[in-house]
This record gives sequence, structure tokens and C-alpha cells, in this order.
Amino acid sequence: MPNLTRYLPVLDWGRSYDRDKLSGDLVAAVIVTIMLIPQSLAYALLAGLPPEAGIYASILPIVLYAIFGTSRTLAVGPVAVVSLMTAAAIGKLSDQGIDYVTAALTLAFLSGAFLLILGLFRLGFLANFLSHPVIAGFITASGILIATSQLKHILGVKASGDTLIEMLHGLWSVLGTINWITVLLGVTATAFLFWVRKGLKPLLQRIGLSKTLAEMGAKAGPVFAVLATTLAVWAFGLADRGVDIVGAVPQALPPLTLPSFQPDVLVAMIGPAILISIIGFVESISVAQTLAAKRRQRIDPDQELIGLGAANLGAAFTGGFPVTGGFSRSVVNFDAGARTPAAGAYTAVGLAIAALMLTPLIYFLPKATLAATIIVAVLSLVDFSILKRSWVYSKADFAAVSATILLTLTLGVEVGVSAGVLISILIHLYKSSRPHMAVVGQVPGTEHYRNVDRHNVTLHDGILSVRVDESLYFANARNLEDRIYDMIADRDDLHHVILMCSAVNEIDMSALESLEAINTRLGTRDIKFHLSEVKGPVMDGLKKTHFLSDLTGRVFLTQHRAVQALCNGSTNQFSPSNDGVSL
Amino acid sequence: MPNLTRYLPVLDWGRSYDRDKLSGDLVAAVIVTIMLIPQSLAYALLAGLPPEAGIYASILPIVLYAIFGTSRTLAVGPVAVVSLMTAAAIGKLSDQGIDYVTAALTLAFLSGAFLLILGLFRLGFLANFLSHPVIAGFITASGILIATSQLKHILGVKASGDTLIEMLHGLWSVLGTINWITVLLGVTATAFLFWVRKGLKPLLQRIGLSKTLAEMGAKAGPVFAVLATTLAVWAFGLADRGVDIVGAVPQALPPLTLPSFQPDVLVAMIGPAILISIIGFVESISVAQTLAAKRRQRIDPDQELIGLGAANLGAAFTGGFPVTGGFSRSVVNFDAGARTPAAGAYTAVGLAIAALMLTPLIYFLPKATLAATIIVAVLSLVDFSILKRSWVYSKADFAAVSATILLTLTLGVEVGVSAGVLISILIHLYKSSRPHMAVVGQVPGTEHYRNVDRHNVTLHDGILSVRVDESLYFANARNLEDRIYDMIADRDDLHHVILMCSAVNEIDMSALESLEAINTRLGTRDIKFHLSEVKGPVMDGLKKTHFLSDLTGRVFLTQHRAVQALCNGSTNQFSPSNDGVSL
Repeated sequence: MPNLTRYLPVLDWGRSYDRDKLSGDLVAAVIVTIMLIPQSLAYALLAGLPPEAGIYASILPIVLYAIFGTSRTLAVGPVAVVSLMTAAAIGKLSDQGIDYVTAALTLAFLSGAFLLILGLFRLGFLANFLSHPVIAGFITASGILIATSQLKHILGVKASGDTLIEMLHGLWSVLGTINWITVLLGVTATAFLFWVRKGLKPLLQRIGLSKTLAEMGAKAGPVFAVLATTLAVWAFGLADRGVDIVGAVPQALPPLTLPSFQPDVLVAMIGPAILISIIGFVESISVAQTLAAKRRQRIDPDQELIGLGAANLGAAFTGGFPVTGGFSRSVVNFDAGARTPAAGAYTAVGLAIAALMLTPLIYFLPKATLAATIIVAVLSLVDFSILKRSWVYSKADFAAVSATILLTLTLGVEVGVSAGVLISILIHLYKSSRPHMAVVGQVPGTEHYRNVDRHNVTLHDGILSVRVDESLYFANARNLEDRIYDMIADRDDLHHVILMCSAVNEIDMSALESLEAINTRLGTRDIKFHLSEVKGPVMDGLKKTHFLSDLTGRVFLTQHRAVQALCNGSTNQFSPSNDGVSL
Repeated sequence: MPNLTRYLPVLDWGRSYDRDKLSGDLVAAVIVTIMLIPQSLAYALLAGLPPEAGIYASILPIVLYAIFGTSRTLAVGPVAVVSLMTAAAIGKLSDQGIDYVTAALTLAFLSGAFLLILGLFRLGFLANFLSHPVIAGFITASGILIATSQLKHILGVKASGDTLIEMLHGLWSVLGTINWITVLLGVTATAFLFWVRKGLKPLLQRIGLSKTLAEMGAKAGPVFAVLATTLAVWAFGLADRGVDIVGAVPQALPPLTLPSFQPDVLVAMIGPAILISIIGFVESISVAQTLAAKRRQRIDPDQELIGLGAANLGAAFTGGFPVTGGFSRSVVNFDAGARTPAAGAYTAVGLAIAALMLTPLIYFLPKATLAATIIVAVLSLVDFSILKRSWVYSKADFAAVSATILLTLTLGVEVGVSAGVLISILIHLYKSSRPHMAVVGQVPGTEHYRNVDRHNVTLHDGILSVRVDESLYFANARNLEDRIYDMIADRDDLHHVILMCSAVNEIDMSALESLEAINTRLGTRDIKFHLSEVKGPVMDGLKKTHFLSDLTGRVFLTQHRAVQALCNGSTNQFSPSNDGVSL
């Protein structure tokens, strides 16, 4: 049964479930449920969907992840960046007569199917093409976009836009219609939530609560803001004075829903679905691995893809929208003592009860409060230090980060993250297409050969030793040829060229043809071409070809042996025409 | 003036032009002109354009390349593969009410502009992303497509299609309408041309001609086929019996033409134009470098882009279509003794005279003869041996080649070549995302450290030395972490991990963060983390960060010094808790 356990991790932890774990899981579930109610509503708002979609997206997905996922404490549901990407994707379909809710279901369905396929084919490595700096830049820019998108709710105006410029322009043009009561509520809620983050925990501890209780009290801050502002709207009749409220939310369990299977809708959504899946996966796996490391547990990236895929398919058929493992909710779950994924199942039960019983209570909840929750949450994601760090360490990474940030802000999330990936790959190819090459000489008294430009080394007459610091493949094969030809162009004293291959991890067919060309070209000038320090796997490949028998020179185990053999009187044997050259 | 000479190579060779060079160039020009007349007509036919377009595309472009190009002997004009790609690209526009001629001009314009931009920004390295095997596969598949596309002219039927299946299906459905007189002409011409390739030169030599004259006579074979079949059609009135002929061709110099600047046409053509430019550039530069090497001349790839860009812009404004440096015409030019690009200018004059005077003579030229010319020329490009060679040497290259061939044949040239490039890049990223890593030990009696799985080496207790054979960057950063953690998981005896970086040519920010994570994780288990053999440029980068001061271990110049220092009694200093472990 080990194979079944691999695909159903629940079989592993479920067997050793006991009362101890139950109580830890239950406490965590209660806390996460309280935290998730306002958060789910807020992210539905951010995605441009009715508030109940946020709650539905947190119920079945969390249960499915508990069955298929490998993290013990990851909490799956709507998260800020994915909600923003959902809003951008379904906004594009509005012209085509597809309603937002169906579009979001379709997006969740495609995203789930894509993740599942990646997982079944073990293609999790694809997520590696998102470099860390690009992710950091993308999250920062998304945070700014999300916070800006919520300003309209704080100001009580109608505005739209997918990019920073569109949003700011939209807000500017409706500044005259600001509802000042909404502003008062929104700004108060925002200020309160910022204070809760910093000041509530120390305050609760000063008045005598234990550290754990104080921490939980601080997490409940948003719930308090929700209660207070809802009461205020109800008590003072603020809804009649222009304060936008959540309004009627169906009092029901998640409905059974179907995504759209219209070909044109599927085609329009597949690109965004792929981007959402990859971003969601990267975010989720980072959180999962961070938490797993703390308890020395292991995460299987390919199985995580299956868990997230199942969660998204669940969202697609129960009125949700794309979900992934969220950072803040997972940390809360972990800190509150969750021991197994069962905590997630209990959270789902809590949210189902909320969907059945509590929805009438949020009728008067002002949207400004939800916007305040979002703004406070996402501004903690904004961190421009990556720009400075990458500038200092690597201009290439800096270019990728700044392009990602700039394009995400000005052209939207999809363009931004695609550009980040493309630029990272192009820069990598560009760098490896112009490999670092060094003429090397012997470090006196040792068997080591180092760059003549960086070390005091001895050169040997008649021998040019060149180290190439890159695998040889199609992108740099021609460059290698050009540069070797340049190096030997004015050297009439040469009898041997040794290519030191200690950093060559691969020679593909293009590079093999270039090496053959170099061998031939050097041969016409009576220069022997040798290789040294060729790695085992590379040598295995060369042995399958004619290259080694055509080689004018030899292959040496080490650079030192090569120089010794070619200097050691035996030089004549290799270069019959070396008159007047001291060796 | 050296800078001006760089952009205008004509200033360089023009100054030393003399009678000797003049006579060589003139002879070559006459031979190339005779060869180009049928070839130009044939490639215009292949591109789906009126025959005169082929001649026009060979006049101004060849002159502009002579001024801006760096090859002394490259002959620029329509070539088979680019003509096929032109046909595929302009075929797509037929629904939009743009005529083929204007579409072809637009394609040449965009292609010229793109090449010029690449050249001015010195982006010639982009062409390196086409690996040699992918090019070989693409040329082979294109040859098959081209030959198949010409069968309809040999059979005298009407058919169309861009892919092999479409073409064969098209031919199958019109088999009943075959014109047997056309078949007789076409098959005879094809057989004759194949014989000319193999048998004419020896025959001419046997009847007493010198080797050079015999070679030139063989090159004139197509002209003879053109003359003979034209005469046959005229003499026997075959045009009235269903043999398709070239018909009236304007008797004029190249006209002044304008490409379309309609935004939708530009948008539709930009993708094909980029592919045509890159394929054309790669084909052209390969020919140019092969010929330059024979006379020890140099080709500047970036200036070549400018030369080809100018040639294509010239084609766009004088009734032509996309052009590039052709293999067969350049070789003929070279062999016939061309010394400078002036030979190209004389060829242009020859073709201009032909356009003015000779076009009435080709009225009765059967299209079947032109098709025969094309078929014989392209079948020499078909070479499936690349499949076998890549299978033996590298399965990755084999995958890229076979995908390129298969997709070019079944989905067309654009999909085929794009897929080839993408697959090459993805395979490269995939391979470097799972780097080869080896545990290394000391080769007894030396300072060398080699893979324990391949060599008899000595290991040192308490020390794990790992060599990673790849640059460390975003695509493999996480993999590095995972594998190091796996290696140390069950090793309670370890006190030192040494990462041997002799093959690490770069550490980007993602990898730096992974190294920091490894350092921290090993630290929690009281294992020191060391680096050895770090290359100069990589070390320069690390010095700018906190990494070196946070490192629990040290950085050693060589792996041997690292092992000596950590074994040599000084081990205690690094790992205080090494009770009971022999070092």
C-alpha cells in the first residue's frame, strides 16, 4: 500500500490520529474559522465576485487538500494575489456575455486540471523557472495594485481599472462623488487594523493575558472591526446615507455549480489559468516548505500539485474561484497548534455553519471594512528592498525584478509575471551564450592552473591553455569558435591548444560540431587541439562519436598532465615544425 | 574613418579594387546571372508570386548587400526555404483582401526592419538559439515540403495546401485531371536535371573540356532545360493542349513599390517576418562563414544583419519578396572566381538587362520545368542522417530534431521551427534544472578529487564533499537544496559539508538564497558548510553580500586545502561536538 499512501497522504496521518491531535486541531480550526470569515468575504470582493463565493471557496477545497496534500498545516482558500489575478482574467470576458461567477468557476476548473496534470506527470520543476527575485517583485507590485484597487471602497466611489494608471485615473475622475461617511468608516477601520497588528498584542499582555491568548486576541482584530462597523451602519442607518454594504448573502451550504465548457471561454481562460496555477503553486509550496521545515516534515512538490489541483476542481463545482495555500492563514493555523490536515476539515465545518447561520448578520457590513482588511493585509507584502539587494548583487536579477514590478503595475499581473519569467530565461541564455573564458597558467609549485588575469602563474611556450566556464551547447557553440579563432589569430608561435573542460558539464550536438570545426581549423595551421579535465558523463558522450579519433591532439585526465606531456620533450612528437621555439 | 568602414565595408574593399579583381568578378557575374534567371523565376513560383518578382528580388537587394555586407562572395536573393515560408505567410492573408504581391512586399519590409534593428543593437547572438540539429531537421523537412508542393506543376493539376497532409490530400483529389503532356515534360526535365548534377561534368570532361569549363557547363544545365522545354511548347503548341506556361512577364526594370502599412496587415505579418529573418540569417551566415574561412576572411555577424536588413528593405520597395544569402548561388559565385561584392553588382546589371530584354523569350516556358528545377535543388537538402547521429549522441537533441521534422511536415514551417527553438531551450533548462552532482573523494597520491562512483578514491570521515556540475541559478536552486538535504538526512557522523564549485560559473540571487538556506539548515545540525574552488567572478559577487560572514565554515582555494585543513587536527576548531568520530 505504500503507493496508495503516496497519492493519499491522508492514509498515512489518519491511522495515527488520537485525542491529543484532535484537541490541537480543533483549537486551530476555531481560530482559523473566525479569521477566515471576513477574509473570505474580502477576497471575493477583490476578485469581483459576490461575497458568498469567498466562503464557498474555503469549504470543499480545504477538505480536498486535507485528503490529497502533503503539508500538515497548510490552509487552502482564496488568497490576495490569486484573487487579483482572477479579477483581471474574468474582467476580460465581460464583453462576451459570460457572467463573472461562471467565468470564475471555469478559471478554477482549468487551473485545477492544469495543476493535476503537472502533478501526475511530475512536472513540478516548471515552477522553478520563476526566480526568487521575480516572485518577490511580482508580490510587491501585486500588493500595490491590490491596495490601490480597494481605495474606491474606502472612498465610497465607483471606479474600475486593471493597472495602476487606469485605477488612479478612474479614482481621480470620480473624486467629486466621495462619500465622507464611508471615508470615516474606512479610514477608522484601516487605522484600527494597523494598530491591531502592532499594538494590540503588547496591550493585551500588559493587561494580564498570556502571550498565546494575547496573540489570538490580536488575530481576532478584524472580526472586531467587522462587528463594530456593521453595528454602526445598522444603528445609525448609514446604508441610507450612501455607505455601500454587503447586503443579502444566501443562507445556504455551497451550491453544486458547473463551469462553462464553451470552447471560446475555455480558450480565453486557459492562459490566465496557467499563470494563476503557477503563481498559486509557488506561493503555496513556499509556505508549506517553510512550515514543514520547522517540524522536520517533508513536502512532496508533485503531490502538492495534485492536492492543489483537487482543491481547485472542488472550488469549480461548489461556487468558488481559484484557491491556493495562503501565507497568513497557514501561519495562524500552525501557531494555533494544528497537528494534521484534519484541522482544515474542521475549519470547513465551521465555515459551513457560518454559511448556514451567520450570513444574515453581515447584511449591514460595510464594504469599506472589507477593503480595510485587504489593504492592511497586502501592504505587509510590499517590500522594495529586493530592488536594492538585487542591484548590489546582480544587475541581471535587478533587470528582471524591475521589469516585473514596472510591467505588473503598468500593464497588469499577467503581463508582469510572464515578462518576469521570460526575462529571467532570456538573461540566463544570454549570459551562457557568452561564456566566461580564461587563459590559464600554472600556479608555481602546484598542479593548479588559474586565470592569468587574476593570479601569478607560469605560462609554457608554444601552448595555449584555455578554460571555458560554461557547458557547451547551441547557444554558445558559435561564440566558442569565434573566440578561439580570435585568440590564435596572431599567435604564430603556437603548437598546442588545450581546452580545459573542468566547468563543462555538457557538450550538445551543436557544440560537438563546433569542436570538430575548431579541430579542423587548428589542424590547417599545424596546431594540435587537446582537451583536459573532461568530466565522466561528457567523455561517455564523446566516445560515441568520431570526434576522439579525428582529434589532432589527446584527451588528458588533468590539465597538469597535459602540460607535462606536451612540454616534456615529447612536444616534437606532436608538432614537427617547431623550429626556434623554446619549450 | 574606421567606424564608417565598419558600417560600410564597401569603403574597405572598394579602395583596393583593381583590374585583376574586376575580371574575376565579371566572369563570376556572368555565370551567376545565367544560373539565376531560371532560379529566380522558380522561387517566385514557389512563393506564390508572379515570375518577375523573383528577378526583381535579385537586383536591388544584391547591390545593397554589396555595400553593407561583410562577405566578399555571398550572393543574396530568393532562396528555397524562405520562399516556402513566404508562401505560407502570405497565404494566410488571402482572406483579408490583401493581394499576394503587397503582402510579400510587407513581409520583406518587416523582415528588413527586424534584421536592421537586430544588427544596430548587436543582437546577432539571438540566432544562436537555433541549435544545429534543429536547423538540419528543419531544412530536411522544408525540402520535403517544397518538393511536394511542386508536384502539382509536374502533374499539371490545380492543388494547394501548406502541410504535407494537406498537399498530398489535395493532389489525391485531383488525380483525375492530370495533364499527361505536362507530366512528360516535367518528368523528362527532372530526370535530365538529376543527370546533369551527376553525369554532365564527367561527360564534358571526357569530350575534352577542362575541369573548370566542365563545371560551368554543368551549372548551365538548368538553362538548357529551360530553353529546350520552352522551344518544345512553342513548336508543338503545347500551351493549347493544357500545359501551364509562365506567360506574359512585364518587360521592365524593377518598379518602385510600397509595402502595406495597414496596422492589421503589419500585425499579421510580424510573426512570420521574424521567423523568416532568423531562418534567413542563420542560413546566410553559415554560407558566408564557410566561404570566408576558405580565404581566411572574417564575417561580422552584426554587420551581416545590417547587410541583409538593407537587402530586404530594397526588395520591399522594388517589387521583390524576402531574400537572404543563398547556398548554391554563393558557392557558384565563389567557385567562378568572384573576388569582391562588386561581382554581385555586376550580376544585378545582368539581371536588369534580362528583365528588360529577355522576358518575352520565356513566355512559353512551362511551369513544370521550373518545378523540376526546384525539386532537384531541394532534394539535395534532404538528409535524414541527423536523426541517426543525434539518436546516438544525445537523446535531447534527437527529441528536438524529430519534433522539428514532424511538426514542420504536419503543421507547417512556422510551427515547426518555433517548436524546435522552444524545445531546445526547454530541454536545456530542464537539464540544467537537475544538475549532475557527485560525491567526490581524493585520488590517492594526488591533489585531485573525483566522483566516488567512477574512480577509486579515499573518503575522509566526518566530511562530505559534493561537487555540483552546473551553474547555480533559479532553475536549479531548489533542486540543490533538496538534494543536499537528502544526502545529509541519515548521516549523523557529519561535521563538514564542502561544496566544490569548480563547475559553478554563476550563482544568481535565487541560488544565493538557497545557499543561505542550506547554511542555516546545516547550522541547526552542527554541520559546518564550506565552499571550495570558487571561481573569481563568482567570489567577487559573493563578497558583496552577507553570505560569507554568515557562512558557518570557510571558503578554500582548492578542494585539497579544504580537506587538509578540516582533517588536520583543526577539525575540532570547526565542530566542537565531534565525540567519537575518527577524523
